[in-house]
Amino acid sequence: MSPLAGRPRRVLFAVLLVSGFANGAAAAGSSPGDDGKVTDFTLANGMEVVVIPDHRAPIVTHMVWYKVGSADEPPGKSGIAHFFEHLMFKATTNHKAGEFDAAVSAIGGNNNAFTSYDYTCFYETVPAQALREMMDFEADRMRNLVLDDKTVATERDVILEERRSRIDNNPNAVLDEELDATLWQNQPYRIPVIGWMQEMQQLNRTDARAFYDRYYRPNNAVLVVAGDVEPDDVKALAQDTFGKLARGPDLPARIRPVEPEQNTKRTVTLSDARVGVPSFTTQWVVPSYRTAKPGEAEALALLAEILGGGSRSRLYQELVVKKGIAASAGASYQGNMLDATNFAVYGAPRGAATLGEVETALDAEVARIGRDGVTADELEKAKNRLVRSMIFARDQQQAMGNIYGSTLAVGGTVADVEEWPARIRKVTADEVKAAAARYLVFDRSATGYLMPKTQAGN
Amino acid sequence: MSPLAGRPRRVLFAVLLVSGFANGAAAAGSSPGDDGKVTDFTLANGMEVVVIPDHRAPIVTHMVWYKVGSADEPPGKSGIAHFFEHLMFKATTNHKAGEFDAAVSAIGGNNNAFTSYDYTCFYETVPAQALREMMDFEADRMRNLVLDDKTVATERDVILEERRSRIDNNPNAVLDEELDATLWQNQPYRIPVIGWMQEMQQLNRTDARAFYDRYYRPNNAVLVVAGDVEPDDVKALAQDTFGKLARGPDLPARIRPVEPEQNTKRTVTLSDARVGVPSFTTQWVVPSYRTAKPGEAEALALLAEILGGGSRSRLYQELVVKKGIAASAGASYQGNMLDATNFAVYGAPRGAATLGEVETALDAEVARIGRDGVTADELEKAKNRLVRSMIFARDQQQAMGNIYGSTLAVGGTVADVEEWPARIRKVTADEVKAAAARYLVFDRSATGYLMPKTQAGN
Repeated sequence: MSPLAGRPRRVLFAVLLVSGFANGAAAAGSSPGDDGKVTDFTLANGMEVVVIPDHRAPIVTHMVWYKVGSADEPPGKSGIAHFFEHLMFKATTNHKAGEFDAAVSAIGGNNNAFTSYDYTCFYETVPAQALREMMDFEADRMRNLVLDDKTVATERDVILEERRSRIDNNPNAVLDEELDATLWQNQPYRIPVIGWMQEMQQLNRTDARAFYDRYYRPNNAVLVVAGDVEPDDVKALAQDTFGKLARGPDLPARIRPVEPEQNTKRTVTLSDARVGVPSFTTQWVVPSYRTAKPGEAEALALLAEILGGGSRSRLYQELVVKKGIAASAGASYQGNMLDATNFAVYGAPRGAATLGEVETALDAEVARIGRDGVTADELEKAKNRLVRSMIFARDQQQAMGNIYGSTLAVGGTVADVEEWPARIRKVTADEVKAAAARYLVFDRSATGYLMPKTQAGN
Repeated sequence: MSPLAGRPRRVLFAVLLVSGFANGAAAAGSSPGDDGKVTDFTLANGMEVVVIPDHRAPIVTHMVWYKVGSADEPPGKSGIAHFFEHLMFKATTNHKAGEFDAAVSAIGGNNNAFTSYDYTCFYETVPAQALREMMDFEADRMRNLVLDDKTVATERDVILEERRSRIDNNPNAVLDEELDATLWQNQPYRIPVIGWMQEMQQLNRTDARAFYDRYYRPNNAVLVVAGDVEPDDVKALAQDTFGKLARGPDLPARIRPVEPEQNTKRTVTLSDARVGVPSFTTQWVVPSYRTAKPGEAEALALLAEILGGGSRSRLYQELVVKKGIAASAGASYQGNMLDATNFAVYGAPRGAATLGEVETALDAEVARIGRDGVTADELEKAKNRLVRSMIFARDQQQAMGNIYGSTLAVGGTVADVEEWPARIRKVTADEVKAAAARYLVFDRSATGYLMPKTQAGN
C-alpha cells in the first residue's frame, strides 16, 4: 500500500458496524482451551495494552491507537491528524519509505490506517509469528519519522488530491461537511476530518514536527493485539519494543469546546447537476457513551435501532415497505465519541414520490416515537439484534480490535466494552421514549438536503 | 458607571455609523488656525499614537484601543475579551475600583468601553486639561490590574447576567448568534463576542492573567487623542505616561482560521412566542477592507448603500414605499474587519403581507442588481451620501476617534482613512454590478428567520 499511488487505500473513518455495536462487544474469541478473557495492562512508559485472545487461526491483528484525532487539532491546522495517517508510512531513521508495507505484503498480511475525530489507528493483520516484527516497525515509526520538507510537501499533495477526489468531487460529501459545520455550533466535530482545503495547503514541517512530538508518544497510545497469542508473550514483546521508548510529556485532559444550548431549526441545501435522486438527513446533537447520564446512550442506541436500524425498523417498514414512497430510510447513532455526538435520520424518495412526502412521513414517525414510545416486543427484539451483532463480531478479529481500541482511545475501559450487553438489556421502554422526546426535537435540529440542480438561477 | 450596577451601560459592539463610513473619514476637525492634519507616531515601547486636532471646544476624547477582540480568544475561552472590558474597571495596585469612573464624573466627563471581534476600546471624553490624568489612569490599568479570585468571580457573575438579559432573553439576539454560527463555517466571527454561556461560566483567574499579560501591553495598543490638543503636547504626555510601560512580548501576526469555500444555502429558524412580527435576514461572506482586492470593498460599500442603505435605497423604495408590503427592508456591509466579513439584507412584512412575499420581492431586487447593475445616477448619489457621511462625522469627536482607532486596530493606517473618499469616488458601476453578481449568490448564503410561535410543535 502506497499513499503515493494516487488512489489511497486508507479509509478516513473508523468502521462502525452498527449504531449500537460501535461501543460494545461481548468477551472475545473463545475457543477450546482458552477462556477468552481480555487482558489489559500498562507499560512503565504509560502505553496501554489490550490483549484479545483468538486462537482459531495462527494470525494476529496488531493495532496502535493514538489518542489524537481531528478534533484535537490546533485552530487553523485542520487535516493534520489525518496528514499523519499518511506521513507514518514514510521513511524513518531506520527504514526507508515503503519498507514496512513491503514487509507486511511479503508475509501475506494486510495493513492499513484510519483517522477519526478522536483517534488515529494503524494496524496489521499477519501470521502470529510476525508479531514481534510488527511491534518493531510500529515502535520505530512512533518516534523516528523523518519529517523533512520534501516528505511533507510530497505527502501534502497527496492529501490535497484525496480531498479533491473524495470531497470536492462528491456533492454528498460537500453537503455532509457543511451540514456538520452547521449542526455543530462550537464543538470541533464541526471541522472535517480531512481538513479544510485552505488550511491543508498551509500545513508544513514545523506543524508536523510539533504535532508528532506532542501526540506520537507511548503514553498517548493504546496497543491492541487480537489473535493467536498469550498475554504474557505480548507483554514481554511489548516491553521489549514499545517499552523502550521514553514517555512523552504529560498531556492535559482532552477537554474541548462543547456545544452551547441550541435554539434553532437549521437547513443546509446543496443543489448540484450531478445529483440524480434527492435525499435528506436530519440530525441532532445528543450525548455519547462518554458524556451521557447512565443508560441514556444505551437508550439512544436502541432508539436508533427501533426507529431506523435496518429492514425491521419502523422507518424502513413504514416508508419503504408499506407506503412505498422511499428508496431508503433509516436512523443512526454514533455513540462511541469522546464528546457529544449526533443522532441522524435520513431518507430518499422512490418513483413518483417527492422528497417532501418522504420527509413528512419520516418526521411523523420521529414525532410518534417521542409521543407514544416503543412496544415491549420491539424493544426486546432490538436488544436482541444489538447484542447479537456483538456475537457476530467475535468472528472478526479486526472488528474486535476496533471495538476495544476505539473505546479505550476515547477514555473508556475494557469493562465498558464487556458490560455493554448488560447495560443494553437494562434499558426500559420509558427510557427510549424519554430519549426520543428529549432529543429528537425539530426546533433544535439541522437538516441537509441534496437536490438535483433544476435551473441556473441563484 | 459601574459594571456592578446590574444594568451595564457599556456597549458590546463598536458603533458603526453607516456601512461605508465605518472604515473612512476625511481629514478631521479643521478650525481657524489649525490645518486639521492628523498626526501619528509610535512610542519607543511600540504603542501607536494618533492625534486628531479639533479645536472647536476645550475638550478631548482619549481612547485606548487594544488589538484584541473575541476572534482572538483561545478555543473554549469565549467571552474573555469582553470580560476584560469589565475587569479593566476594577481595582489596580494604585487605584480602588471605581476611582477612575469617579474622577471622570467629577470633572463632568463621560467614559465607556466596548468590545468587538477585532478590538477592545476604552475611552473618556473630558476637559482638555484632564488629558494627563486620563493617561495616568489608562496607563495604570494597562499593567496594574488586580486579578484576584474574588474580583474575577464577582465580575463573571456580571457578564453572565449580561448574557442572560441581552441574549438569552431576546429571541432576536439568540437567532443572530446561531445565524453567525451557521454563516461562518470556520472563521472565529462565528463565536459570539459576549461568549457562549458554558464557556463564560468556566473563565477563571488563570485565564484572565494569561490574557491580560499577553494582550494588555503598549505594543498591542493604539492611543487615539481627538480634541483641543497639540501633537507635541500629546507626544510628551504619552511618553511620560504610557511610554514608561515596558514593551510586552512580540505577538505573532493575527492570522486566524479563515472560511473554506462555501457551497450551500442555509437557513436558521427561531420560533418564539415572544415574537410579534416575523422578520428575516440573508447574509453572505464577503471580503473586508483588509482582505479585499483593491476597490472591491468600496464597491461592496456602495452596493449596500444603493441596495439598502436608507430611505433612498432600492429596497426601501421598492418594498416599503412602492409595494407597501414591508415595515422595514435594507442592506448593510461591515467593511472594517480584520478578516472576511458579512453582507446582509433584511426585511419584515407590514399589514397583511407575509414574510414570504417580502423575501421574494427582496430576493428579486438582489438578483436584479447582480444582473442589470446600477445606474450612473444612483452610483453618483450613493458616493455623495457615503462621502458626506464622513463630513458629518467631523462634528463628532468620538466618531472620528472611532474611525481612526478601529482602522488602526485592524492593521490599517491613517492614510487608509484619509484616502477612503478618493477610493469610493473611483468605483465604477461595473465594479458594483460585479460585486453583486459575485457575492450575493443565494446558493451560498445563510438566512435567519425570526418567527412567531404559532403552535406547540414537537
